[in-house]
Amino acid sequence: MKITILGGGGFLGRKLAQRLAQQGRLGGRPIAALTLFDLAEPAPLEAPFQVTCLAGDVASVADVSRAIPDGTDLVVHLAAVVSAAAEADFDLGMRVNLQGTLAVIEACRKLSAPPRLLFTSSVASFGGGQSALLPDDARQVPGNSYGAQKAAAELLLADASRRGMLDLVSIRLPTVIVRPGRPNKAASSFFSAILREPLLGLETPLPVGDEFRVWVCSPRRAVDWLMHAATMDAAPLGIDRGVNPPGLAVSVGEMLAALTPAERALVKREPDEAIAAIVGGWPAEFAATRAKRLGFAPQEGVPAILAAFREDDLAATRADRGM
Amino acid sequence: MKITILGGGGFLGRKLAQRLAQQGRLGGRPIAALTLFDLAEPAPLEAPFQVTCLAGDVASVADVSRAIPDGTDLVVHLAAVVSAAAEADFDLGMRVNLQGTLAVIEACRKLSAPPRLLFTSSVASFGGGQSALLPDDARQVPGNSYGAQKAAAELLLADASRRGMLDLVSIRLPTVIVRPGRPNKAASSFFSAILREPLLGLETPLPVGDEFRVWVCSPRRAVDWLMHAATMDAAPLGIDRGVNPPGLAVSVGEMLAALTPAERALVKREPDEAIAAIVGGWPAEFAATRAKRLGFAPQEGVPAILAAFREDDLAATRADRGM
Repeated sequence: MKITILGGGGFLGRKLAQRLAQQGRLGGRPIAALTLFDLAEPAPLEAPFQVTCLAGDVASVADVSRAIPDGTDLVVHLAAVVSAAAEADFDLGMRVNLQGTLAVIEACRKLSAPPRLLFTSSVASFGGGQSALLPDDARQVPGNSYGAQKAAAELLLADASRRGMLDLVSIRLPTVIVRPGRPNKAASSFFSAILREPLLGLETPLPVGDEFRVWVCSPRRAVDWLMHAATMDAAPLGIDRGVNPPGLAVSVGEMLAALTPAERALVKREPDEAIAAIVGGWPAEFAATRAKRLGFAPQEGVPAILAAFREDDLAATRADRGM
Repeated sequence: MKITILGGGGFLGRKLAQRLAQQGRLGGRPIAALTLFDLAEPAPLEAPFQVTCLAGDVASVADVSRAIPDGTDLVVHLAAVVSAAAEADFDLGMRVNLQGTLAVIEACRKLSAPPRLLFTSSVASFGGGQSALLPDDARQVPGNSYGAQKAAAELLLADASRRGMLDLVSIRLPTVIVRPGRPNKAASSFFSAILREPLLGLETPLPVGDEFRVWVCSPRRAVDWLMHAATMDAAPLGIDRGVNPPGLAVSVGEMLAALTPAERALVKREPDEAIAAIVGGWPAEFAATRAKRLGFAPQEGVPAILAAFREDDLAATRADRGM
């Protein structure tokens, strides 16, 4: 089995690659080769199969085609400009999130057999806000450029899938917590920071109220979903290739309750209207009935999310930040 | 008021231009200039204002920018590759229907003030099929490339509108009957042909059954809707800029009942599975509650549609076809 991860140098791409390296197999088949592609060449990865690391522009068909050689069975397209960055720089978001996806379609249709294509779309492609509990057939009415670009990309990928150019599963990821590393330009960055920074003994701002609700999953569960979607039977999806996976609806207060009182004291209430305006438009909960029927495992509670971060990422985050 | 019609040489663009020429005004303001832009230079138009006819490629920002000079108040973006053609030639559909729309966004954002942008999306962007009665918040799950490209374009235009680059109203047109001229590559072409051809004394094939239901409007009503959307207050739309206008749900049998027995005998049952597969996926009816509240006039019955064709287009169609 030959696999390519576009955005393979990113947070989720790296985690998926590590999982593949640990298992050596996917869907009962041995992995023969893995290509990691990103804007900057991804770091080497130790694995029981061949790993190729490539730098390139996801909006260039030539670059993407180099990353997806003939015989590729699975392409995981994670390359994206995140929400606040796409809002700040319209052209950059359109180039990476939209034209990048079109380049992926072009590269896939050149192959002699259509690969399974996993696309990570986002909760940010929906509206509805704090009071929403969205059904599986909820319409995507994005209130931000990132969400609009992701929803448009989903439509075009689904059409390419219907035409046999690729074999799509789009997973509309919840807000992923706890992200390792540092705060980034995603409007949702603080949802990770309010757990991660206190565990590191650092103060961190909270731009929304404690009662603010959010639809989340752990990086570990997101990787579980990608692994499942990589080899699941896609026929039951019909032409509707988008899946709302079973995340966890939780309030900021419930998240903070999983910290010790001393850790909790490091979270500083600093309302930020620009951040609140973006994340406030995202729905706080989904029914996710279809995904459960399709075998996607539900997200466990906040203690499990925090435990996953301690086990998988806390030490590396400390080291990364020279602590 | 300065107006540009992209696709101004096409059937609907021409009708809209003629209406503007008749009225000389729009929304209480005199029209100062009209630019008609199409792949082939549109024919001259007599009007009480300046008319400029331009040939160009809608996917070229330079060409589209020539057609939308600074000071343009209204852009009507009708340029499109129709359903069966976009299904037959994926690259052509993507180029015109998607990249063309991106070029329109680029041209609009260069202006010193954002123009009202009317976009004609389509019933083909929805699924649901014969049994559907779609609510206003129905999700677009297109089963054809034309519909996918239109739905993706709607999302990207709505985001550009939210960002202040333009001021969008997207109208998801029903199947427009009776089209003048000859049968074309739209999968829906036969819905016009089964009324038009018998009126011309010609035989015509019917690829679906008499009980087949379709959501229609007359060209005259489509132009009414565009005229209304051109100057309506768009604030009540919020960020959701797509409107399902109040068309008419009608069966093929009900359409044929408006013909004389002699005319009806010219319609030949010739089932065509390829055509039926495309149009069979489109929903047969919409609630259209929101559009009615926004002041879009409902479509009248088949006799009114047939009368409009006789008054507006029958003589010209005869002449055009050398009859």
